[in-house]
Amino acid sequence: MNAQGWIAVAGLGPGNEALITPEVSATLAEATDILGYIPYVARIAPRPGLRLHPSDNREEIDRARHALDLAAAGGRVVVVSSGDPGVFAMAAAIFEALEGRADAETLDIRILPGITAMLAAAARAGAPLGHDFCAINLSDNLKPWEIIETRLRAAAHADFAMAFYNPRSRARPEGFGRVLEILRECCEPGRLITFARAVSTPDEELRTVTLAEARPEMADMRTMVIVGNSLTRRVGPWVYTPRRA
Amino acid sequence: MNAQGWIAVAGLGPGNEALITPEVSATLAEATDILGYIPYVARIAPRPGLRLHPSDNREEIDRARHALDLAAAGGRVVVVSSGDPGVFAMAAAIFEALEGRADAETLDIRILPGITAMLAAAARAGAPLGHDFCAINLSDNLKPWEIIETRLRAAAHADFAMAFYNPRSRARPEGFGRVLEILRECCEPGRLITFARAVSTPDEELRTVTLAEARPEMADMRTMVIVGNSLTRRVGPWVYTPRRA
Repeated sequence: MNAQGWIAVAGLGPGNEALITPEVSATLAEATDILGYIPYVARIAPRPGLRLHPSDNREEIDRARHALDLAAAGGRVVVVSSGDPGVFAMAAAIFEALEGRADAETLDIRILPGITAMLAAAARAGAPLGHDFCAINLSDNLKPWEIIETRLRAAAHADFAMAFYNPRSRARPEGFGRVLEILRECCEPGRLITFARAVSTPDEELRTVTLAEARPEMADMRTMVIVGNSLTRRVGPWVYTPRRA
Repeated sequence: MNAQGWIAVAGLGPGNEALITPEVSATLAEATDILGYIPYVARIAPRPGLRLHPSDNREEIDRARHALDLAAAGGRVVVVSSGDPGVFAMAAAIFEALEGRADAETLDIRILPGITAMLAAAARAGAPLGHDFCAINLSDNLKPWEIIETRLRAAAHADFAMAFYNPRSRARPEGFGRVLEILRECCEPGRLITFARAVSTPDEELRTVTLAEARPEMADMRTMVIVGNSLTRRVGPWVYTPRRA
């Protein structure tokens, strides 16, 4: 291989092919190597000359190192994430793996944005993130639970709408129940919460309930949870947050 | 016209055509009417049978009402926003205008997500939004300044990364200077701030400085400002926020 390798970290969007940007599609067409979590690599059509490297989702740093090594050796490497690669996905892992490398200044790296799950979910629900909002990863794999709790309380206090990634997993079935308890301490019972599962795929399910009605089992690993701010309201079948505060 | 009208609120992304989703492109191709702020409508190629309705950016609610009326009369109407329509853009205005209408339950409305400015800017900088973050509209056209200040302090206290939309305008040249003062009260002087102007267009400019070095005039109306959290760091030419807290 020659020295013209590069690495692109690309967002495939929430699932529907019509939500993949032309920039990402064109880059995938030039790739020699695709790396990513198994179900995301499974979205890439095989073709001659393209090597697929699926890996498990607990192996982000090893995958990032492998991708950087392949690019340094001349590969045209695409690391695929669902959604947007910069939002709780592979872009940060790539830069963590870049630390200490002699080629950190010179490697050709591009981050290609995608439609992140919270914006796809918000679009299906209406416009619940139409005013100031925050995005919180509820997984405590990589941070102490206390930080999640501090951020939830701060967001509720300042009346941000909130989007929760990874609300519930088999490893932490109790965490999301605790999140709902904290929200009940900080917010009124009529606060609107949207559970958006597998948005833009054939498995899509959408449900909006009040905080009083919300139950932990309404979320699973494929669900985005969007909590409105104090002014979020319904109109017709829609949920939206007004532009005025 | 017949009764099969519909309205789509579509995100055109930050400027580069390669960042417009195929879903949006296909919907634009079916439209009879395009409404939006003058520079966004200017991005749509004219064709026979397509009516363009550009309007000023202080006229969101009138534009939304006009769009709903055209769809109710059988038009195939696309309201265009830059970025994502659900993030400080036209989707919320459409639902505000839908309030009280007899056809609120039945009008065919779709919100089509797009690449919002903060994610395009983050991708060019690296991964500064790679951990929990919030998005704040710094315009005080539609909310009291006190709310902006409360949200800034809450976000800094809880160590969110932050993305600022509309940091500076001719009408409010002093507001962003006050934002920097508040950040200096709450955050360490070495906190990294990225100013990303006109991302993905020929006018793109990107600059990352410390909070101590940041000046109000580094932002203008076309700039996204991204403030890292306390762990945000540089590697090579990049800025990223680690996945661990």
